[in-house]
Amino acid sequence: MIHPTAIVSPKAKLGQNVTVGPFSVVHDNVAVGDDTVIESHCELGHPTALADGRPLEIGSSSLIRSYSIFYEGSAFGDRLVTGHRVTVREKTRAGANLQIGTLGDIQGHCTMGDYVRLHSNVHIGQHSRIGSYVWIFPYVVLTNDPHPPSEVRLGVTVEDFAAIATMCVVLPGVNIRRGALVGAHSMVAQDVEEDTVAAGSPAKFICKTSRVKLKNGSGVSAYPWRSHFHRGYPEEVVASWLAEFSSSSAGPDSGTRRNS
Amino acid sequence: MIHPTAIVSPKAKLGQNVTVGPFSVVHDNVAVGDDTVIESHCELGHPTALADGRPLEIGSSSLIRSYSIFYEGSAFGDRLVTGHRVTVREKTRAGANLQIGTLGDIQGHCTMGDYVRLHSNVHIGQHSRIGSYVWIFPYVVLTNDPHPPSEVRLGVTVEDFAAIATMCVVLPGVNIRRGALVGAHSMVAQDVEEDTVAAGSPAKFICKTSRVKLKNGSGVSAYPWRSHFHRGYPEEVVASWLAEFSSSSAGPDSGTRRNS
Amino acid sequence: MIHPTAIVSPKAKLGQNVTVGPFSVVHDNVAVGDDTVIESHCELGHPTALADGRPLEIGSSSLIRSYSIFYEGSAFGDRLVTGHRVTVREKTRAGANLQIGTLGDIQGHCTMGDYVRLHSNVHIGQHSRIGSYVWIFPYVVLTNDPHPPSEVRLGVTVEDFAAIATMCVVLPGVNIRRGALVGAHSMVAQDVEEDTVAAGSPAKFICKTSRVKLKNGSGVSAYPWRSHFHRGYPEEVVASWLAEFSSSSAGPDSGTRRNS
Repeated sequence: MIHPTAIVSPKAKLGQNVTVGPFSVVHDNVAVGDDTVIESHCELGHPTALADGRPLEIGSSSLIRSYSIFYEGSAFGDRLVTGHRVTVREKTRAGANLQIGTLGDIQGHCTMGDYVRLHSNVHIGQHSRIGSYVWIFPYVVLTNDPHPPSEVRLGVTVEDFAAIATMCVVLPGVNIRRGALVGAHSMVAQDVEEDTVAAGSPAKFICKTSRVKLKNGSGVSAYPWRSHFHRGYPEEVVASWLAEFSSSSAGPDSGTRRNS
Repeated sequence: MIHPTAIVSPKAKLGQNVTVGPFSVVHDNVAVGDDTVIESHCELGHPTALADGRPLEIGSSSLIRSYSIFYEGSAFGDRLVTGHRVTVREKTRAGANLQIGTLGDIQGHCTMGDYVRLHSNVHIGQHSRIGSYVWIFPYVVLTNDPHPPSEVRLGVTVEDFAAIATMCVVLPGVNIRRGALVGAHSMVAQDVEEDTVAAGSPAKFICKTSRVKLKNGSGVSAYPWRSHFHRGYPEEVVASWLAEFSSSSAGPDSGTRRNS
Repeated sequence: MIHPTAIVSPKAKLGQNVTVGPFSVVHDNVAVGDDTVIESHCELGHPTALADGRPLEIGSSSLIRSYSIFYEGSAFGDRLVTGHRVTVREKTRAGANLQIGTLGDIQGHCTMGDYVRLHSNVHIGQHSRIGSYVWIFPYVVLTNDPHPPSEVRLGVTVEDFAAIATMCVVLPGVNIRRGALVGAHSMVAQDVEEDTVAAGSPAKFICKTSRVKLKNGSGVSAYPWRSHFHRGYPEEVVASWLAEFSSSSAGPDSGTRRNS
């Protein structure tokens, strides 16, 4: 399971049935759960004094695609899946089922909940706080310095179920609230309210997310996306979402809230 | 020609005079044409069930620069040239003389004609359709999901001779028509008409491309670019372009079309 | 100090106490100064005819992080520090203490002074001229072709102490003058004057930089940043900056210049 060209420290703790591909390096301070695959040309547990001696912890049944780099001092739940060439610095803490796309750059000192999905080439600045079931699309940058360069760090917050479309910059300290959608190529300088769409540079309120219809001729709202998009989520989670929306034919924007 | 540290599957089909550099991996389901150079630290034929068993095919006289990854199930004509760290997923089909710049991320399930040139860090979303003689500049993203996340996929179309300048996002289903130019840092939400310039966020019609003059004091139109830019194209192609423009001293915007 | 899996040409000139990590390749035409660390999976001195035979020169006490590529024909002063996956082409010339962030793409044929700091994923086009003490933040692209594709090359100039925030495009031939600040997600089509803030797409004059206050409740101007930000600069440089501002309690915007 360990390719003969791989270099794995005898101090690294690998679970049962872990695979390590050719030309990969696993440093000392690493703990990897059972049934995890580490592809070729990876570097796990890159040493740094900034990790305060904490290990890199990767949960079970994970897939680390080729050319990825993880520093020591970060921790991930089970079923982490990465694209290729991911770079993850120290003191990143994420829940289960995180996906990081190819070329992702996680700067460390940040938190993520469960089922966060980062598409290709996403840059997560230090001190970002990301909830669960969040989607971030390609070439999005979460920043943290309000007047660069400086010593001030104001992380971005992205709440549960929010989505940030391609090539947006989110300025320091901004909160993208629960279920919000940021349109592509936006610069977000102010908080985006729950279940609303913001877009532009600087981004402004466009409409409630429920106003966006699916482009499949059905006339159904595209948001909240969990009302119709279920690929890759476990049955029990999808069942809870279906139950949430079956009680209301038009979704959470229906009923008395329609008049707000 | 195969570096002793390279790992090349005996099932891979390498043509005559193929070079494979140090620390590169060539998987089983790969066919490479004659006289092709694969530099160091590459991974060719990355296995995926999504390829339906099809091989990775790379034409002859190609150059795959270091740290590039190609999945099985994609096919390229002769004289493919990549920069470094290119990632190409399955079911990409391209003609001859494709250039993919450093850090390019081709998501697969897309088509490209001949002589397509992608500069550094271009992201081609699934279901993109790219013609021939197209130029795409750094940090451009072609998207495909009109209301992310969803199961709907509307690919972008880029027609022959079109150019998309640096750091543009093209929204799902948009058509950049023949000879069009998209200005830098634009967000393209609507089709861009033939031989016109669009720019802004959202991008709007600016002028006909023929109104843009070369910044070399000549007063000559910079577009169609094939009237003056010939580097890297074969003699017979350039000859056809010269013939096209020699019949009209001012290019395709002259004569009766000037009054349109 | 040379890992047994590293491939180091006997023609390469390595100084005293140089470390080369696993799976790295050092080609012939390379000179590295004393006490420099080259991490794993790097490629130094990538051959190119465009280098005119000149070597890759890297100064002493440098740190080249893993997966970085440097071509022959470029030269760097002492204490170069890179992130991971940096790509640097030929005929780049930089002073001392350059920092290049992860995924940086330096296209070559450019110059940089001392203490330039490029954050992650910065793209420096050919013929860029960058002064000293410059900051460039993630996903910034310096372009050079005024009507792509063409043979015309107009490089960008960035003067001393200027800062360009995240995800900006700077158009060909533009000059970002001394101490200027470009706001995030801007497209810069015109010169930005000394000690002014420009932002937007296209970027316009916003205010003098001294109008931007530190977001720490102090009421102190955030610019010139050297009045308060000193991390990583040597004592003598910081002392000169402190002396510059101690003669004027409000910084360079005070006194007679306030009336300008």
